[in-house]
Amino acid sequence: MIALEERIQADGKILPGNVVAIDNFLNHQIDIALCRQMADEIYEAFKDKPISKILTIEASGIAMATLVARRFNAPLLFAKKTKSTNLHHDIYETNVASYTHGDSNRVFVSKKYLPSSDVVLIIDDFLAMGEATRGLINICEQAGATLAGIGVAVEKGFQPGGAYLREQGYPLKSLAIIDAIDEASGKITFRKEEEKA
Amino acid sequence: MIALEERIQADGKILPGNVVAIDNFLNHQIDIALCRQMADEIYEAFKDKPISKILTIEASGIAMATLVARRFNAPLLFAKKTKSTNLHHDIYETNVASYTHGDSNRVFVSKKYLPSSDVVLIIDDFLAMGEATRGLINICEQAGATLAGIGVAVEKGFQPGGAYLREQGYPLKSLAIIDAIDEASGKITFRKEEEKA
Repeated sequence: MIALEERIQADGKILPGNVVAIDNFLNHQIDIALCRQMADEIYEAFKDKPISKILTIEASGIAMATLVARRFNAPLLFAKKTKSTNLHHDIYETNVASYTHGDSNRVFVSKKYLPSSDVVLIIDDFLAMGEATRGLINICEQAGATLAGIGVAVEKGFQPGGAYLREQGYPLKSLAIIDAIDEASGKITFRKEEEKA
Repeated sequence: MIALEERIQADGKILPGNVVAIDNFLNHQIDIALCRQMADEIYEAFKDKPISKILTIEASGIAMATLVARRFNAPLLFAKKTKSTNLHHDIYETNVASYTHGDSNRVFVSKKYLPSSDVVLIIDDFLAMGEATRGLINICEQAGATLAGIGVAVEKGFQPGGAYLREQGYPLKSLAIIDAIDEASGKITFRKEEEKA
């Protein structure tokens, strides 16, 4: 998605360790106009499937997932990181490591909001190691729900998450795939559309 | 907002301690159609103000705030609970107690996304003690930004948060105000439109 790639190149802040901070339009402050275009692209990729639920994980995936859910007119369900007093029983849970935060979280979904009849589209803002996505897939498997696909804003193509998901045969749409980051020049190399699997 | 009140009465689950769990349409699973109507109501209440930024706090306020931001065509900024490796410097921070979770969090906003020129609309899903809202107001004050108003989905009118904010003169729009919960009968009493200040 050209508009997203241009924005990453223009506004992404390259930090040591192959990190691109995109917190001025996606992770902290959210550019709603761009995010709407991104939701439209995800919708185009999966509109032929009978999506009944959008599944994401708190917190930074929720905004894009909300706009995707709006396009599909489907409920949004977000996996929670905190087991509140309201959410103690009848949950699917799984473990998700975060390399950005340097820790790991248990995440939870209430069983009653993910019946086996659901056809699920997983949405997340970032795909790098793939821990969060694999956690959500694991929750879908526990529920016996159908996984229709995975939509991601930014994939770091030099980390193994995306390749693993494609090898496993999951339909994956990444709007931008970063294949290389040159810390010295600030140049970001994106995978070309025809090279995306 | 009648549609919201009816949904709270129909689907809200009354738990001990005057808690109404509305996680099947707002806090965990999100009914996008209802949430769009809610965003429309918030927009109507504040559309005459030159809102330049929507401010919320992760996680469960993000979905409604996204749809409000979409109506205003304004960027969304959400206060974060985790200081990631990407967000160490130049932050406004404040403390927010959570009675639901029984703990308290420091929350953070990057200074560069909240300039003093911003006209801010604060959005949150719940208003009870008002801790989260006061935390966001405190961040606006630190930034020197103009607070145009506060939009809330569900206010618990028998807790002091809403009354405090009105006393302070903040323009507050609560889409539904719960004045009483009868645990025995399950009856929820909402403040009538003409009784709302």
